[in-house]
Amino acid sequence: MRKDEKGYFISLEGIDGAGKSTQIKFIQQLLERLDKEVILTREPGGTPLGEKVREILLSKDEDSILPYSELLLIFAARVDHLEKVIMPALAMGKWVICERFTDSSYAYQGGGRELPLEFIQLVEKWTISRLQPNLTFLLDLPVNIRTQRKQSSDRFEQEQNDFFERVRVSYLRLAKQYTNRYCIIDASLERLEIQKVIEKEVINFLSKIKYA
Amino acid sequence: MRKDEKGYFISLEGIDGAGKSTQIKFIQQLLERLDKEVILTREPGGTPLGEKVREILLSKDEDSILPYSELLLIFAARVDHLEKVIMPALAMGKWVICERFTDSSYAYQGGGRELPLEFIQLVEKWTISRLQPNLTFLLDLPVNIRTQRKQSSDRFEQEQNDFFERVRVSYLRLAKQYTNRYCIIDASLERLEIQKVIEKEVINFLSKIKYA
Repeated sequence: MRKDEKGYFISLEGIDGAGKSTQIKFIQQLLERLDKEVILTREPGGTPLGEKVREILLSKDEDSILPYSELLLIFAARVDHLEKVIMPALAMGKWVICERFTDSSYAYQGGGRELPLEFIQLVEKWTISRLQPNLTFLLDLPVNIRTQRKQSSDRFEQEQNDFFERVRVSYLRLAKQYTNRYCIIDASLERLEIQKVIEKEVINFLSKIKYA
Repeated sequence: MRKDEKGYFISLEGIDGAGKSTQIKFIQQLLERLDKEVILTREPGGTPLGEKVREILLSKDEDSILPYSELLLIFAARVDHLEKVIMPALAMGKWVICERFTDSSYAYQGGGRELPLEFIQLVEKWTISRLQPNLTFLLDLPVNIRTQRKQSSDRFEQEQNDFFERVRVSYLRLAKQYTNRYCIIDASLERLEIQKVIEKEVINFLSKIKYA
């Protein structure tokens, strides 16, 4: 990595079971081969405070976290994550690849839990100044395929299909709203095919920022 | 308690070391002698989720929770507390006496941490519809007396005097803004003297609601 390089922020989004954890590692290897310094992180989580919040959120004992509590807990963790991990890494010229970011809040708490988008926007504006990734991969998966793939193991994964249907629709709406940074990938394809698409998109992005 | 009675919500506020925990029990005994059904509770806390958040907030390991994270964690717990404990109790005609409520957020995160009051107001409006106690006792203590009394034992209590000075000023401002529900008590008085004032105010409040 050249010392004067600028860092970029990539996020992976999609419903649980779409393959984000697998593909995030592929993007890391791809960028490292291109001599970039990369950190992988995730939300909720990424810091000691964030991981404590994650534990509360995913625990199956907490069967009834209210939607507003859920949103506020996630943003509490996000503020910590952004200030202590993401911003410092970007400032040092590193690439940050994050599994889930604010778009997850719009999709899950806005779409899934049906909280008013206006409130999510207000919290986003005040707490993180609407910072957005430079590039977002949406691993889009029809909900019935997800159901075949996934064993439900945490509080979110126990939700019913209509919940995930609303989450998926919200993601597709975000992709339409932010065409400049969104890349929709058909997550029902074979892994190698998905990686080909990702590789092409990353190379595309690199040439775009080179001549920006 | 008569079955058709209405429940009321009393909060105790003040900087740490002002004597809230002692006086909350006195109010409970006073109301129970008057045949009211009473629940005591506290913030942050009051529910399993709230107590987990409390643990994160007060832990001395967490030496650097960012102000926005702090505020969001506290409101996440407050939503849970209000929906699962306070509102149901009030609906059953119980009296709820709570150590700290939203005024603490204005005083500590607004005054102490200097977060914009506008943002606290927005979160209060959206998440708890600005619900306020019917009666609030502010145990007001000059910061230098607090310092003599109190061994600092959690993350908040380790703050410096100028932090508590800002908290105290914010509380006095709230008392001026909400004269209808606020009762300021000089917490440097002897305990029995304080209890005399509280007793008088509670009797006052009871006759006010009787003829309302």
